[in-house]
Amino acid sequence: MSQRTVFIVSDRTAVTAEALGHSLLTQFDGVKFKQITVPFVDTVDKATEVAAKINYIAKMESQRPIVIASLVQDDVREQLLNCDGLVLDFFEAFLGPLEVELDIKCSHTLGRAHGMSDVKRYDLRIEATNFALSSDDGHGLQYYRDADLILMGVSRSGKTPTCLYLALQYGIFAANYPLAEEDLESGRLPQSVMPHRAKVYGLTISPERLRQIRMERRAMGRYATPQQVSFELRAAENLFQRFAIPYIDTTSSSIEEIASRILNETGLERRVHA
Amino acid sequence: MSQRTVFIVSDRTAVTAEALGHSLLTQFDGVKFKQITVPFVDTVDKATEVAAKINYIAKMESQRPIVIASLVQDDVREQLLNCDGLVLDFFEAFLGPLEVELDIKCSHTLGRAHGMSDVKRYDLRIEATNFALSSDDGHGLQYYRDADLILMGVSRSGKTPTCLYLALQYGIFAANYPLAEEDLESGRLPQSVMPHRAKVYGLTISPERLRQIRMERRAMGRYATPQQVSFELRAAENLFQRFAIPYIDTTSSSIEEIASRILNETGLERRVHA
Repeated sequence: MSQRTVFIVSDRTAVTAEALGHSLLTQFDGVKFKQITVPFVDTVDKATEVAAKINYIAKMESQRPIVIASLVQDDVREQLLNCDGLVLDFFEAFLGPLEVELDIKCSHTLGRAHGMSDVKRYDLRIEATNFALSSDDGHGLQYYRDADLILMGVSRSGKTPTCLYLALQYGIFAANYPLAEEDLESGRLPQSVMPHRAKVYGLTISPERLRQIRMERRAMGRYATPQQVSFELRAAENLFQRFAIPYIDTTSSSIEEIASRILNETGLERRVHA
Repeated sequence: MSQRTVFIVSDRTAVTAEALGHSLLTQFDGVKFKQITVPFVDTVDKATEVAAKINYIAKMESQRPIVIASLVQDDVREQLLNCDGLVLDFFEAFLGPLEVELDIKCSHTLGRAHGMSDVKRYDLRIEATNFALSSDDGHGLQYYRDADLILMGVSRSGKTPTCLYLALQYGIFAANYPLAEEDLESGRLPQSVMPHRAKVYGLTISPERLRQIRMERRAMGRYATPQQVSFELRAAENLFQRFAIPYIDTTSSSIEEIASRILNETGLERRVHA
């Protein structure tokens, strides 16, 4: 398999450039990419230094590295565009057309996207995260009333990571209700949730996958037996259907996919954009 | 202020396209953007439907919407490229040059980036998230031994959200050690952390900001008084300096920035790329 070095270069955190690079590079089979992330390249000097590194690798490996860049300042980007790598910079590609379209010059200033220019936005994400975490403290009526969304499912169906992701990424207040044995046996929704059932979204998962996850956590006892797992999932799905609760199967979905599907299907508005 | 509708269109979760759109659009002052996110546009039919919506808005608003797109399939993207919006698609912009550079045709298949093609990757993120969450259960020697990183700081300095972000985004096992009054008074590191102090990274924050955060949480008692907040922060910073623990000021940083700086400065390797 051929190998290629990839530099992810950003004047800020490199989070977006990494995601972009990942999307692009996973399209190419048969190449092994060695990724080097260089965040906070926000001066001409730092850019010159990175360019020198790229040129060095180009020479050593006798092929030019790929450079996925996100540099908003023209003079900084200029340094990199002159290096020996293949530079793909999304500001370079898209700011021009946007300036023409909007008929204004962009500000070319740093730190708009992931900087804390907006303290309120930061606070909202933290509040939402604390909200998601507080789910473990108990489930009062207040808790469900304040929630934007209530995720419901059996133990290990993916509720907690999804709640946390929705909080950190979008500032959404997602509560979680773990379906207990008594809920599953009675086939009823708990009193505390009933008034808010319009906010409930169900998660389900295949029995095989759930067993696998539970085995890693607690292999002993009934928790991960095929019988128990099948019973719980069947009962949960019956419950969702009886109360017309929309639900999705998380078996072959990433956390991003689960979160994105729920937002899309509920029409819930993102409070912040990460 | 002028207004413009922006469509974020993706064949998957739209997470990357949203981040990209946010980076680009925050560069333009004086325009109010109304954002509509449309994920999972993975068929020609769905693309045709979105294109019709875009055309409708273009007509209604007498100006064309901006479309930030991430569509990997040629035939799906084609539908959108013919709409009345200004379409900026990063696959369109970058896959071509990459194909030439790597001298292979890309697979143009869906779901490589945020799909769960890799169950191990999913498991790792969940494990890391559980690890971050388990910090609240107690702080055994085992816990610090298994950690990639131990974040240390006073209450509300940003440890928990940073740990969770590192877990969800990068699969990093980040433990957190909240500095207690006794640590601050004794000026010593706790026994459980001492053997692992090379993994410790400190967080500090300005007294004003910490007070503000604490006031919202618990306005009563000593917790949010100027004296207490100043004492804790001074003692924490002294501790960091005494034990040569690197630390950063989180006052005006977003969670992404804090995480990215720590990874950059520790050289810690990302276990997964979100």
